Amino acid sequence: MTQIADRPTTTPAPEPSVSPSIDTAWLGEYLLGQWAEARHTSRALMALPEFQRQEGLSLAEQRQRVFGQLALLVESKGVHRAFPKSLGGNEDHGGNIAAFEEIVTADPSLQIKSGVQWGLFGAAVLHLGTEKHHNKFLPGIMSLEVPGAFAMTETGHGSDVAAIGTTATYDEKTDEFVINTPFRAAWKDYLGNAAIHGVACVVFAQLIVAGVNHGVHALYLPIRNDKGEFLPGIGGEDDGPKGGLNGIDNGRLHFDHVRVPRENLLNRYGDVDENGVYTSSIASPGRRFFTMIGTLVQGRVSLDGASTVASKLALDIAITYGSQRRQFVAGSPTDEEVILDYGRHQRRLLPRLAQTYAMSFAHEKLLTAFDGVFSGKRATDADREDLETLAAALKPLSTWNALDILQEAREACGGAGFLAENRFTQLRADLDIYTTFEGDNNVLLQLVAKRLLTDYARKFSKADAGTMAGYVAGQVNEAVVNNFGLRRLAQNVKDFGSTSRSVGNVQSAAAQRQLLTDRVHTMVATLAANLRPASKLSPADAAALFNRNQNELIEAAKAHGELLQWEAFTDALAGIDDADTKKVLTWLRDLFGLTLIEKNLAWYLIHGRLSSGRAQAITRYIDDRLLPRLRPQALDLVKAFGFTPELVRAPIASGAEKIRQDEAREYYREQRASGAAPVLEKKPRR
Amino acid sequence: MTQIADRPTTTPAPEPSVSPSIDTAWLGEYLLGQWAEARHTSRALMALPEFQRQEGLSLAEQRQRVFGQLALLVESKGVHRAFPKSLGGNEDHGGNIAAFEEIVTADPSLQIKSGVQWGLFGAAVLHLGTEKHHNKFLPGIMSLEVPGAFAMTETGHGSDVAAIGTTATYDEKTDEFVINTPFRAAWKDYLGNAAIHGVACVVFAQLIVAGVNHGVHALYLPIRNDKGEFLPGIGGEDDGPKGGLNGIDNGRLHFDHVRVPRENLLNRYGDVDENGVYTSSIASPGRRFFTMIGTLVQGRVSLDGASTVASKLALDIAITYGSQRRQFVAGSPTDEEVILDYGRHQRRLLPRLAQTYAMSFAHEKLLTAFDGVFSGKRATDADREDLETLAAALKPLSTWNALDILQEAREACGGAGFLAENRFTQLRADLDIYTTFEGDNNVLLQLVAKRLLTDYARKFSKADAGTMAGYVAGQVNEAVVNNFGLRRLAQNVKDFGSTSRSVGNVQSAAAQRQLLTDRVHTMVATLAANLRPASKLSPADAAALFNRNQNELIEAAKAHGELLQWEAFTDALAGIDDADTKKVLTWLRDLFGLTLIEKNLAWYLIHGRLSSGRAQAITRYIDDRLLPRLRPQALDLVKAFGFTPELVRAPIASGAEKIRQDEAREYYREQRASGAAPVLEKKPRR
Repeated sequence: MTQIADRPTTTPAPEPSVSPSIDTAWLGEYLLGQWAEARHTSRALMALPEFQRQEGLSLAEQRQRVFGQLALLVESKGVHRAFPKSLGGNEDHGGNIAAFEEIVTADPSLQIKSGVQWGLFGAAVLHLGTEKHHNKFLPGIMSLEVPGAFAMTETGHGSDVAAIGTTATYDEKTDEFVINTPFRAAWKDYLGNAAIHGVACVVFAQLIVAGVNHGVHALYLPIRNDKGEFLPGIGGEDDGPKGGLNGIDNGRLHFDHVRVPRENLLNRYGDVDENGVYTSSIASPGRRFFTMIGTLVQGRVSLDGASTVASKLALDIAITYGSQRRQFVAGSPTDEEVILDYGRHQRRLLPRLAQTYAMSFAHEKLLTAFDGVFSGKRATDADREDLETLAAALKPLSTWNALDILQEAREACGGAGFLAENRFTQLRADLDIYTTFEGDNNVLLQLVAKRLLTDYARKFSKADAGTMAGYVAGQVNEAVVNNFGLRRLAQNVKDFGSTSRSVGNVQSAAAQRQLLTDRVHTMVATLAANLRPASKLSPADAAALFNRNQNELIEAAKAHGELLQWEAFTDALAGIDDADTKKVLTWLRDLFGLTLIEKNLAWYLIHGRLSSGRAQAITRYIDDRLLPRLRPQALDLVKAFGFTPELVRAPIASGAEKIRQDEAREYYREQRASGAAPVLEKKPRR
Repeated sequence: MTQIADRPTTTPAPEPSVSPSIDTAWLGEYLLGQWAEARHTSRALMALPEFQRQEGLSLAEQRQRVFGQLALLVESKGVHRAFPKSLGGNEDHGGNIAAFEEIVTADPSLQIKSGVQWGLFGAAVLHLGTEKHHNKFLPGIMSLEVPGAFAMTETGHGSDVAAIGTTATYDEKTDEFVINTPFRAAWKDYLGNAAIHGVACVVFAQLIVAGVNHGVHALYLPIRNDKGEFLPGIGGEDDGPKGGLNGIDNGRLHFDHVRVPRENLLNRYGDVDENGVYTSSIASPGRRFFTMIGTLVQGRVSLDGASTVASKLALDIAITYGSQRRQFVAGSPTDEEVILDYGRHQRRLLPRLAQTYAMSFAHEKLLTAFDGVFSGKRATDADREDLETLAAALKPLSTWNALDILQEAREACGGAGFLAENRFTQLRADLDIYTTFEGDNNVLLQLVAKRLLTDYARKFSKADAGTMAGYVAGQVNEAVVNNFGLRRLAQNVKDFGSTSRSVGNVQSAAAQRQLLTDRVHTMVATLAANLRPASKLSPADAAALFNRNQNELIEAAKAHGELLQWEAFTDALAGIDDADTKKVLTWLRDLFGLTLIEKNLAWYLIHGRLSSGRAQAITRYIDDRLLPRLRPQALDLVKAFGFTPELVRAPIASGAEKIRQDEAREYYREQRASGAAPVLEKKPRR
């Protein structure tokens, strides 16, 4: 019968009875990473009620409250870390993002509204402008005297910024730019601060000088007067209520031949001189565009981090509650079971906890890369390109994961999880848009896939198809040699019967790395082979070929991102000295790695990387070993996130549930002891 | 190189150039099913603005508006279909639920609030009470003179109703029941109408008569006076704002020795006579409990239907928009691509469209079964049991699917999808709780799994383990005979190279059925074998064994539910006469079936049901054949859902996007024709 058994019925060998003990204080600091101080400072602010979301406010009240909180942030010196020292900033780019990410614990609306003001509007002036712009515009932006919008996205061109329709045409007669919206689809849309609070904006437009389109450039443009009315030629609309982030006044803007002085062009990467001649330090228009857009990578970096913070918060609440809540009688004749002791509940929450740790460690690497580029410490073209690819790979994974984690945590708390006071639903509603703004996740993953293909192709720039084929075959051979190859039949025989033996080779870090890496390499090599004919096809046929592979391209990019997360987690293990902490975190990393492999098991089976026996052993190892080992560690693992009660706030995670459960159990215990308990009906009928 | 290619690079044979044409009008009626008239009537009401959700209201205003809408529903005679003819109803149970489900198009809060009043509070009196209760209480409930709560769930015992703490103790001295809340965890919680509007409730309590607990029974209990104040001994709290459904005033109730006359016991299944003697027509307390609870199955039935309606609405909006929206240049040198032409976009939306059709046809079967039981037409114990299992299998799938579909549709519309006016986010927020109320999805699926195991065990009640093992082996052999067996190696050789040949055997309906059925059977057989030792173990060890298999149990129940959906879709094909309509729906059913198999590909590979070659061919067949065939049908397939603009309402699905896109393309076309278009920078540099 065993030949079709999904899982061996033999009971696994007993675990050591003493469970290791994590050093949660040390681990907490380790998780906060290089910019722990900025995070602590930001958390201390966010623990104050005045920064926190308030339920029951109208749309107008929410917007006004969050706008008021921005002023408090200025007062608290919470938002100037990235600006020039000469203007009162710290030029601390990593610390700025770290502090910014923690704002999500108070209210994602506050996070994103401050992101609009200082991270987009202000950062565009800082990174796309030059000193004259810094001195003229940044003080007002920093002090919030000039709230502003980041007018890039258009109704008709969401993530395709290169194709925007707004134009800025140089008029040599008056030495001005004329900003114009040629049709409805070119209205700027979804802009925070545009509906009400913005008095200026940075507008992105096709820069046209003497009949030549130099591509997308940014200009500084006042939009409202002192009374909050639009300036002549400028119009707009309120985007109205949204699925979340309703503390932000998103809106639309359009321009009817609005004139700004030539100096308002943010001219770091492209300029027009007093003779009307366009110059740029970057010759290629394509590279220039990506360089300008690249300065805005911090949005993606910070969303990756904020999603990680929100995921930590959700798991802190759900795991705390799951450790206190009791439901249904299982093994005990009297006491109901703590729900986190159920196998399904562990399956729902613990792999997501491992995922969150992976996201946290991966984000620290991303933030370090970001700081390197923006501080100038590691800022070569290659560093910039790597940073952009890393951000494009991680932001989609973490923003999607955060929604998944928030939803599973919500459901794991049942009806209580649906109450606004317990935080999940509002955080989920607010973070929803993180998956499609600052670059739609599916679009970003295609950028990653293209980079993977480019890197792959570089190795073969001078090679012919035969070489490439050889390389691909070589990869497969490498896999074969390393025990995960196409020797399925042999493995089937060898693995049969013993879970512990067959999993032995897969659970090691080296095996996890090889399986995850091999998958990425093979997917990329396969795509390269599939897409190779494109260069010989008509544009339409090439597009059709690309289109047929689009889904796989995105899957390959995801696999790459997951590998990066796994590697970050594994690298982080090396920094842990305490033996118990290291042991538990290693189990957690294994859970992350094996869950990834399990999720893509069909791929590993189809490509002969795993035998059926090993594939099943992975699931068994997760259920029989890793989850039971990690169950007693779960509370410490969320405690290490370091959230104080003021940051958590959810009543179900306050200990109230334990008090309720204890009271109920005590009631029944006393009733039994006193003999006053009613007997069950069936007893007298016997 | 092909040996590692994920997908053959050969271009598939061209499809016939004339695409079939669906009879959308006929298909629309077919989808509305047996109770089409009730659905039309309900949709006509829901097309009126006074029934629809209004943005920007405060919590108090939302609650008051929805309460007012209930009165409008009474006036419109929209909610009395299920009640006795003698009291002005129609005794039309299927039609009642069908009409109720369509309310979700106006506002899920209105749906659930009316569900609380007439589907829970009213239905409890109807189904658990007897004629005296009907005559005394139903008129006020039907007219909304007596708004009421359904006081079953307790803070401490969400889905475990049998374990509730509230007691109703018979006092023979006064011939009354004394209703009491012994501890905080026994407070009734999450009850619609409890915070404000309810003046009565049906309360569920452990019925204690002369020291014997007869288990959970229901009693009718007034809770508020004319001024809206709690009656003596009754207290409560407002649950406050929630993640959605904020038109409903959910709240808590507790009772301090509140007395009601003996006659208030809803006594259809258990009664106490004037001598204080308990009697019941159902001897077994367990069966009695499940019979009482079983009368409330209509909640689950209607959530399955409402989730299906919401999914149809979401796909109507996203597919309409996806057919008009253009983004990024692909094959054409001038025009941007319609986004639904992208492979990834098709992968995101079309399998979900197939899923929604499957949900729709499966729901029609569920509703038919429900109507059979509640009309008395097909109401044996076995019919009831089947109905409950079917509802428990389908409700989890459709409520989870609805959230998934709403979210994917939201993301597929980018920033526009996040605007409240475009419906996705509010529907998603409201439907979130559908996954955990009226029976938590994970709990329901365990009920299904237990039923599957019971049915399985019945076949072997007198058989020994050897027989069972033989049966299991027999199943495998049956599979082998039928071409999906363990002959992987041979298949690997045979399949190699030709997608179309190797998929030939898998795409047929018979093959899909066999693969899906075989998986359910094998999973159940495996679980039965794994759990077999439980009877010989201590309760604690048996619980631990069960716990280790809990995740697989739930997966088996899901697989069973998916098979039922597939079978319903397949059965529905037989009712289609029009050849073109039948052809397209067959493709859609194939997409549904093959997507299910693809999702569980690892299982089929591990268990030798599919070779690697066939497994890959399934993915190829979906991407290269089914999606391209269904792409031109997508608009007709959502048109068949029959939603008028008043029901859809989302501006992005109104045609506005097409007007915007056409205007932009016309602008560029004119510019090119006039020679006024700015040249791109790189041109003059050549």
